[in-house]
Amino acid sequence: MKALGLVVEYNPFHNGHSYHLQKSKEVINADIVIAIMSGPFLQRGEPALLSKWARAKMALAAGVDLVFELPYAFAPQKAEIFARGAIFALEALQCDSFCFGSENGRIQPFLETYHLLQEKQDNYQALVKKHMKEGNSYPRAASLAFSELEKNLYALDLSKPNNILGMEYVKAALSNGFKIKPLTIKRVQAGYHDAALPENSIASATAIRKSIFDSKSNISNISGYVTDSTSSVLRDYIREYGQFHNWEMYWPLLKYRVMSASAAELRKIYEIEEGIEYRIQQAAAHALNFAGFMAALKTKRYTWTRLQRMCVHILTNTTKEEMIPLQGNPTYLRLLGMSSAGREYLRSKKKHMPIPLVSRLSSFGSPEIRPDIRAARIYALGLMEPYQSMLMKREFEAPVIIEKSPS
Amino acid sequence: MKALGLVVEYNPFHNGHSYHLQKSKEVINADIVIAIMSGPFLQRGEPALLSKWARAKMALAAGVDLVFELPYAFAPQKAEIFARGAIFALEALQCDSFCFGSENGRIQPFLETYHLLQEKQDNYQALVKKHMKEGNSYPRAASLAFSELEKNLYALDLSKPNNILGMEYVKAALSNGFKIKPLTIKRVQAGYHDAALPENSIASATAIRKSIFDSKSNISNISGYVTDSTSSVLRDYIREYGQFHNWEMYWPLLKYRVMSASAAELRKIYEIEEGIEYRIQQAAAHALNFAGFMAALKTKRYTWTRLQRMCVHILTNTTKEEMIPLQGNPTYLRLLGMSSAGREYLRSKKKHMPIPLVSRLSSFGSPEIRPDIRAARIYALGLMEPYQSMLMKREFEAPVIIEKSPS
Repeated sequence: MKALGLVVEYNPFHNGHSYHLQKSKEVINADIVIAIMSGPFLQRGEPALLSKWARAKMALAAGVDLVFELPYAFAPQKAEIFARGAIFALEALQCDSFCFGSENGRIQPFLETYHLLQEKQDNYQALVKKHMKEGNSYPRAASLAFSELEKNLYALDLSKPNNILGMEYVKAALSNGFKIKPLTIKRVQAGYHDAALPENSIASATAIRKSIFDSKSNISNISGYVTDSTSSVLRDYIREYGQFHNWEMYWPLLKYRVMSASAAELRKIYEIEEGIEYRIQQAAAHALNFAGFMAALKTKRYTWTRLQRMCVHILTNTTKEEMIPLQGNPTYLRLLGMSSAGREYLRSKKKHMPIPLVSRLSSFGSPEIRPDIRAARIYALGLMEPYQSMLMKREFEAPVIIEKSPS
Repeated sequence: MKALGLVVEYNPFHNGHSYHLQKSKEVINADIVIAIMSGPFLQRGEPALLSKWARAKMALAAGVDLVFELPYAFAPQKAEIFARGAIFALEALQCDSFCFGSENGRIQPFLETYHLLQEKQDNYQALVKKHMKEGNSYPRAASLAFSELEKNLYALDLSKPNNILGMEYVKAALSNGFKIKPLTIKRVQAGYHDAALPENSIASATAIRKSIFDSKSNISNISGYVTDSTSSVLRDYIREYGQFHNWEMYWPLLKYRVMSASAAELRKIYEIEEGIEYRIQQAAAHALNFAGFMAALKTKRYTWTRLQRMCVHILTNTTKEEMIPLQGNPTYLRLLGMSSAGREYLRSKKKHMPIPLVSRLSSFGSPEIRPDIRAARIYALGLMEPYQSMLMKREFEAPVIIEKSPS
């Protein structure tokens, strides 16, 4: 039985994801697809549009067999840590390969780049440092350093977020000597951040979310870009929880936290370094909303996503003291949903799992899962009552989603 | 020139306050009335119905000449600390006497009770301890102890909140050897907590607030119980800031704070003792609103007001570490408003003030005022935008209110 691993956020699941899923399955002739998915807060430092349960439902409906939650300690994180957590999880789940989308769809440049960077590591690090000293953000400095390192030899453009992530996936697998095999297929259409809906059926998740919020949660405009099951999960979510999640919902809480905490307290928060706490307090005091706050906060030194991740950690009150010990590898994986084939797969592999799989929160007492529980609670606090209590109940009381076989 | 001191909250200023003000002035034939008033959070652990600026306006319109803010370190506090801060302030402001309302209007029982308690202190303390061990709250234990101490000798009923406060005012003045002279006059009608509006023109502030919230901020029902200027300030407040303040407005912030903080963080908050942090987290997780939260939290061991004060300190993130050094005596007083007579008085006494009087925040850099600034900011966060920003602006940029003489 061949198992394919995917690293996903499905925010929300759309036709591009569907294409990637089907095509990747074909390429390795997979029997089982396992997705490791960010929970309430995503890699780019944003609350997910809808709960992990709703997103797991979309994934299952589209043919994923097992959906696991990437722990909070690895989700709203820079590419390196995010990739380390996700690829470790897929290796632990005994996937044969993982497959990510890339600009040119060839794995060779990633492998060669990995080996090049290993060889010339010292040189590369020195160049990165130099470019950061000049006031560039880390991703920009890394991309500049890389392009100076070996001009035009490889086609890998490391200024593209998808290539950076892909590179980190490959690095996580190779540097740890994992059995899991890295694969990539060519992405179709839509750049990562394209904001407008295109004319064909593939739009970026960013464009889809923008259209949803612009139209006050009317989802008819996006029906050409998402699967029917995604449309139906989106509609159900609005019916059940009243609204989709975005940063503006959490702004009153974030502002309150920033205004009530001392600078010393903010400094204890994960990723808050170099005096940015003072800048954050200044910006929050005068901002009317999250967008205005971010605009006031942004400098060349920090990427937008890094600043947003800082905000996630402040919002969830996640400290350095808590996070740093958790950052080796995931020590548990929470199962969100499964198909009957997924259930069979787990049954056959269970004995050899290197870490516990959690299917009910109440049966897992390890303190390491606390940041996930807190993040889920705070994610729910963005909703009004009674939706808030309903989402908390879903999180803490309801079982794993079981997808009936289509038969 | 004779100066009368009053300890007030004016939440809001009503006919009973007006009666007390006029009558007290007559009794000592005062030229000047100075009020020391709680800021955004009140002695009983509640957000004030409207800002300190609006309440200062009511006071000035009714004939108070100087309104000062009782610092946060003394306001949401048990009677002893509240009284210590307030009476120290009135002594510092060189008032000749202070006058409080009491059930029977005679100062003699207070003085005698004070001396009795001084004499029999050890015995009294032992009785209080005994009753607390039996599971009674402090006020209840103190009242029981007192009644056993000297049966029927004095008419002072120490189970009444007003008598407890009066006793603490007297104690603060006498035990510190202050020059200021304690006086009391008989309160008219309306018990402290009466919830229904009575038929005559005197209602409790509790009944007035209840009527305001019950009628969705319509203030026509209460116009018979408040002065015309109070009515007009209330109407202006709704026009300017959209709503009056109550605990329910702050519930989303309080819940968020309780759910995101660790038990260890809550334990650092002032007044959080004896493991109550776990009970608070439990109660918050399941409550839909502040009323439900308080109902779940209440036990015989803690009074309602003590629990509410804990909530204020959690909301404002006020720690033991900050508060304990501030609790000697106020080290500054912030001027909120003055009449021309008040301004004259200050001019003549300024040189002999033992502590600084702050009339502009920006000109006073002492860190001791930080809890007041934070409390004012968080008080504003209860409002929606743009009201929130307007109230912050009022707090930080606008000057002291100057009441024109009625001429």
